[in-house]
This record gives sequence, structure tokens and C-alpha cells, in this order.
Amino acid sequence: MKTVSNLDFDFGAWCAGHLHTVEQSLNAWVCAQASPHHDLSAPADLVHAMRYAVLDGGKRLRPLLVLAAWEAVSREASPTAPDLRDAALRAACATELIHAYSLVHDDMPCMDNDVLRRGKPTVHVKFGEAVALLAGDALQALAFELLTPEGDAMPVACQAQLCRLLSRAAGSSGMAGGQAIDLASVGLRLNERQLREMHRLKTGALLQASVMMGAACGGTSLGMREALAQYGAAIGLAFQVVDDILDVTADSATLGKTAGKDAHHDKPTYVSILGLQASRQYAQELHAQAMAALAQSGLRHTEALQGLADMVVQRSN
Amino acid sequence: MKTVSNLDFDFGAWCAGHLHTVEQSLNAWVCAQASPHHDLSAPADLVHAMRYAVLDGGKRLRPLLVLAAWEAVSREASPTAPDLRDAALRAACATELIHAYSLVHDDMPCMDNDVLRRGKPTVHVKFGEAVALLAGDALQALAFELLTPEGDAMPVACQAQLCRLLSRAAGSSGMAGGQAIDLASVGLRLNERQLREMHRLKTGALLQASVMMGAACGGTSLGMREALAQYGAAIGLAFQVVDDILDVTADSATLGKTAGKDAHHDKPTYVSILGLQASRQYAQELHAQAMAALAQSGLRHTEALQGLADMVVQRSN
Repeated sequence: MKTVSNLDFDFGAWCAGHLHTVEQSLNAWVCAQASPHHDLSAPADLVHAMRYAVLDGGKRLRPLLVLAAWEAVSREASPTAPDLRDAALRAACATELIHAYSLVHDDMPCMDNDVLRRGKPTVHVKFGEAVALLAGDALQALAFELLTPEGDAMPVACQAQLCRLLSRAAGSSGMAGGQAIDLASVGLRLNERQLREMHRLKTGALLQASVMMGAACGGTSLGMREALAQYGAAIGLAFQVVDDILDVTADSATLGKTAGKDAHHDKPTYVSILGLQASRQYAQELHAQAMAALAQSGLRHTEALQGLADMVVQRSN
Repeated sequence: MKTVSNLDFDFGAWCAGHLHTVEQSLNAWVCAQASPHHDLSAPADLVHAMRYAVLDGGKRLRPLLVLAAWEAVSREASPTAPDLRDAALRAACATELIHAYSLVHDDMPCMDNDVLRRGKPTVHVKFGEAVALLAGDALQALAFELLTPEGDAMPVACQAQLCRLLSRAAGSSGMAGGQAIDLASVGLRLNERQLREMHRLKTGALLQASVMMGAACGGTSLGMREALAQYGAAIGLAFQVVDDILDVTADSATLGKTAGKDAHHDKPTYVSILGLQASRQYAQELHAQAMAALAQSGLRHTEALQGLADMVVQRSN
């Protein structure tokens, strides 16, 4: 089945609307999340650092992927299916919390030792290393808090499935594992297959999980899930290829983080292995794979997912 | 209702049997947990550090609390209730993974900068700071992986409830929040209420959650849950009071970690606020509160929970 070409779809407006909702939700949830359950709020310093790490910055690619996948899938669902809009929004914010925590820890002196992120001083520069460490830890826990609200607003099967997808994407066989390979690979010559494996874990796992978490809030057929998993894998890898390209072609002001740091740290990248031109071609191929997966998915409303694939490949920061 | 005094109950044998099961399970789960889902295992260094942090050491107090609470509650359940033994074991190991990750991060140079833990070099001394940071992060994620197995071995309502309890106990309104207060309180004079609040979060939240997670695998009445929550709160605080006492009365070899470090770091403790004698009395009072809560719980088989309360107060390390 082909995707329907919807000429009326305004991707910019779609993004703007959803970004607004995501920012509002993060602002509300990374705050006094625990107040209904505890009589002492989290200590001020820790909460400030958590909010600093999460709010007012970032492309919110992962939340947008969650919401785009949820919309595509839920528009195929029976009109009597439960509306899991709130679950999708929680899933969207949870992926961003995991991403934000990984950046906080990744920037620390014992890791990349970076002082600039999203154009601002990194969390450990602003709040000290100990608070940065704890803020990252607390953000990871908060992601799972968001996915497991009390009451009956969100079916428990959905809660369990979202925690299942997110924990596997974040852990030693996902993001944290990819970062460990990244660390161990400094100064080594990886081949392309090894580089792809590293990035599949380090960046790809959470991007793909974002798509699958959105789908999990909508109710999907196996065929749809498999196609969306392919879409997620392709854009996950494309994201990293483009990251490697931007690291050598963009300046720090545009990136909002330190440019040229991969070469500086002697890290293997797509550009160092394939060269710049072949890396650009590869990003285009992965984009085409993502589009083909959507076309085969049986989903009729994939405009936002298509727009996000474009954004991943065409971005300048 | 009074607890039944069971003279045949052998607490030592109970502990030995359950410790064996917990060690075997941790050994199996902190390993290739992800292999069914991924074609690349987690990188060797990361897995070694995770296993080093978790295996062959520790009192396993949190897992034992989970299993004791589960047994007490499930023995009151209807014979037709589902047997959630596997869920309880997963919950037991998940609490230990959260505890282990917190120790890894807490020992790092930017936090307590400790080189000795359970009689061995700390994780960052052995594997480097970057791997220690990632190992802690991955252990937290693994805790939630354990709680959300695929298939129908564990009811999704139980999975969601366990993730709910654990994430709240670990995050900014629980353990991580307590550690942030601890950091911020160095050199300050806290009063006893403030010290109690700090420890309620830092240590108490996860100990109490262990009890409640065990109960959640067994099916409880509201009255039982409230009594178990009181028991968990009392032993959680008693644990910390005893910790503070041992910090000044025991030597490093007995503790398996550096003795006297609270005073060295100018941290407020029960001993520094109440004095040694009053701290010992307070630990006994908390023990009595825990026993009273069990007596009021309506549970008839609380021998293991009683034994664990004794262990918390009588321990020498």
C-alpha cells in the first residue's frame, strides 16, 4: 500500500504545535513530579540542574518521533479504541529525559569533558560535577516515573510495554552500551560495520525506540511494527551519519556545541572512514530506506514521519 | 491480630537459601540480558564493570526484604491466586541493581571519592571513571529491564506497579534526591528532623520500596500495605542510624569500606547530632516500631521480616 500524499499537510505547523505541547509538559513534569506522593520536594539544586538540562533547548527529535508514530498508527485504529494521547505525550517526554540525562553524563570531565551544549555551559560547568551526576541519574528515574502514572489514565499493559522498550533502548544493549563502545574505540580503526554497530546502539536504539513507543500507544499490526522498526533504524543511523558530517562542516555557533571534537578526540566517524562525499550519499540512501519502509507500512498518514526523516537528513545542527 | 511465634523458623537457613537464589539470579541477569533482542552483546568492559559492581558482595538486604514481604503476603493469599515467585525474584534483583548503581556513582571522585567498597577497590578505581559512570547508568536501566519481561510470565499490572514503586524510590524524590541533600549538607548543622528527612530519601525510600515491591507481588489489603509501609519506614531509618553508629565504632576491615569518613567529610550524622548513646537507643526504638507494625499488619508469617529487622539493628557491617 502506498502512503497518501497529503498536499495540505503543513509540517512546520505540525512541529510547532507539538513542540509547544512537549515543552509545556516537560516544564510541568520536571519539577514537582513527586509532590503527590511525598511531603518533601526534591532539593532545589538538583531540580534546577534537571530543569536546566531538559528545558529551553534541543530539537526534541525523539518526542516528535513518538508523537508522529502515535498519530500515524492511531489514525488507523478503530474509532472505539481508547485514546492514548496522554500516554503518547508521556512516552514523548520520557524519551527526551533519557536523551537529556545521557548528554549531561556524556559532557562530564571523565567522558567528553565538554563545556558547551545547546549554546549554554554544560550542566557540570554550571552546577558542579556531583550535582550533574545526580541530575542525570534522577532524570533517568523520572523517565520511568512518567511512564507509570497512578490511577487508570493509562492502561497497565501500555505502561509495561513503554518501560520495556525504553529500558532496553537505554541500557547496556542500547545507548549506554554504545557509549561504552565509543569510549573504547578512541584511537582505534573501526571498519564500517563496527562503526554502524556502535551507532546503532549509541544513538539508533533510542531513536528507534521512540518510534516504537509511539506505535505502542496506538495499537498496531505486526506488519506495521516491522515497517516502523525499519524506518526507525534507518533514520537512527542517518542521524549519526549527518552528525559526523556536521562535526567537520559546521561551526560551534551553528551546532550549539563544540565542532570538530570527534577529530580532536581521534574518534572514528563516517567521515573518517567513508569520506565526506560518500557519507553524504549514505545519508541519502538511509533517507530513501526510511521512506520505503513507510510506503510499505500500510499506514496512510505518515506525513509527519516523512517530514521528520527529511529533518534528520537536512538539518544544520 | 498478633503475629504467630514460629519456633521452628530458622532465619539463618532462610537467609542462606534466598541469598543463594538471589546470587544465582543476579549472575544470570547481569550478563547477556539483552541477547534475545540484539545481535551485539554489550561491550565487554561495561559488562565486566556491571558484574563487578553487583556480584560477590553486599548484604543483599533489599532483595531479602522483597522476598520476605512477598512470602508474608502470598501466604495470606487465596490458593487460586497466581504464583508470582518469578516476579518477586525479579523485583528483588532490581532493587539490588539500583542499590549497586548508587554505590558506583557515590564512590566516584566527584562524590565521595572512595577507593574501597565491600573490601575491594571501587569500580572507578578498577575500570576508570568513564566506565564506572556508564556502568551505573546501565545498571539503573537494567533494573527496569528485569521488571518488564516479554511474554506472559508476569502480569502487566504487576510490571507497571513495580516500575512505579522503583522509579519513585530511585529518583529525585527518593534516593537521588537524598544524595543531593546529603551533598548540600556537608559542613552544615542540620537538626534531627532535617537529618531524618535526608535519610528517609537517601536510604529509606529504596528500603521501604523493597518491602512494598515484595508486597505488590503478593496481593495485599490496604491495611497490610499501610502496616508494611510503616515497617519499611522504621527499618529504613534504623539502617541509617546504625550506619552512622558503625562509622564511628567499627574499623574499615570490618565495614569493608572506609570507616570514619562521615566525620572526615564533616557530614551531619545521628551520632554527631544525638550522641552515640542516644543514637543506639533510637535504633532500638525504631526496631520496636517495625515490630509493632508487623504485629498490627494482620500477616501471620512475618518471621523473616522480623529477622531482617533484627539484622538491620544488630549488624556489625
